[in-house]
Amino acid sequence: MPVDKPAPVDHPVHPHIRARWSPVAFDVRPVEPEKLRSLFEAARWASSSFNEQPWRFVVGVKGQGDTFERILSTLGEANAAWAQHAPVLVISVAKLSFTRNGNSNRHAWHDVGQAAASLAIQATELGLRVHQMAGFNPAKARTELGIPDDYEPVTAIVIGYPGDGSLLPETTRARDDGARQRRPMAQIVFGGTWEQPPAWLA
Amino acid sequence: MPVDKPAPVDHPVHPHIRARWSPVAFDVRPVEPEKLRSLFEAARWASSSFNEQPWRFVVGVKGQGDTFERILSTLGEANAAWAQHAPVLVISVAKLSFTRNGNSNRHAWHDVGQAAASLAIQATELGLRVHQMAGFNPAKARTELGIPDDYEPVTAIVIGYPGDGSLLPETTRARDDGARQRRPMAQIVFGGTWEQPPAWLA
Repeated sequence: MPVDKPAPVDHPVHPHIRARWSPVAFDVRPVEPEKLRSLFEAARWASSSFNEQPWRFVVGVKGQGDTFERILSTLGEANAAWAQHAPVLVISVAKLSFTRNGNSNRHAWHDVGQAAASLAIQATELGLRVHQMAGFNPAKARTELGIPDDYEPVTAIVIGYPGDGSLLPETTRARDDGARQRRPMAQIVFGGTWEQPPAWLA
Repeated sequence: MPVDKPAPVDHPVHPHIRARWSPVAFDVRPVEPEKLRSLFEAARWASSSFNEQPWRFVVGVKGQGDTFERILSTLGEANAAWAQHAPVLVISVAKLSFTRNGNSNRHAWHDVGQAAASLAIQATELGLRVHQMAGFNPAKARTELGIPDDYEPVTAIVIGYPGDGSLLPETTRARDDGARQRRPMAQIVFGGTWEQPPAWLA
């Protein structure tokens, strides 16, 4: 059975925010084209500095050309071991300069993150799961996917339906059994001088 | 009347993703403490590289100490003109190194963006609006808020209930009347070599 791990929240949040998590067990079932379109439509409507929309996505769908295999070849060995079973692999890419004037965009990576988070919430809405990874080779991704100089590979993203992990070695599958953890809110939200908790949190 | 501007989507997305946008007209009504807690709880459960959670938020609530005014003083003049009427101002901050080993975190800004997007979706759920801005003075924010060296101010975030703009000059208020626009999906999602559309988008 796929593992569900709703976040142990201290304060109420939207069910999709609570349900979103990053499993290693994906089902081999393909993702329907209309669901792929909705995922990237959600990314498309994220907010960005000066509405630059610096996000780009190279999408590999298993069985459609060799983009999936080329993205898979950029993953670290431990990630490739489980990600190979998922139906969709993506490389997110940041455009580093503003299109309107060529100036450096300080928020390029930040805004790619916003688009990716929007995609992950939409995936939850559609019964899909998303697992983003830092563990890939950006230089190899650039070569394999023809990513131009003014753009930078950011993350590798695995997308698919939740799986039961039966295709994975037990030590890999067991990664999905760990408890979800976050810093206490008092470590991330400050009210006045740095690290001073806000009055409304007490 | 507050302006609603659901995104003119080409493919279905979750109502909160469609409804989220960045107005300049905010109501003076305070944000309830329990809603503030839910906003940052949503940010807290975003995904991050190695679960570092590099996001920090300095939150200024109007009428609680002088943090609101200190954040306001870092905004560009045009932004301060409308943001001053909102009840909550925030500076998002990225921790640039991994806590576990001190190494540089390539995804610090990206992951702050993910947390901010999660907060914005939660705000929509609660009837609030969020407007993030690049237009503030990061060096001044560092001084005013005591942000340490290993951390970097990322965005200024305005939070509040939607307003009717009656407190704003007409030229400012009119910014909320513009149409929402994004690049066509074929400009941001590629299927094989760079800028080649994926088969499932045709």
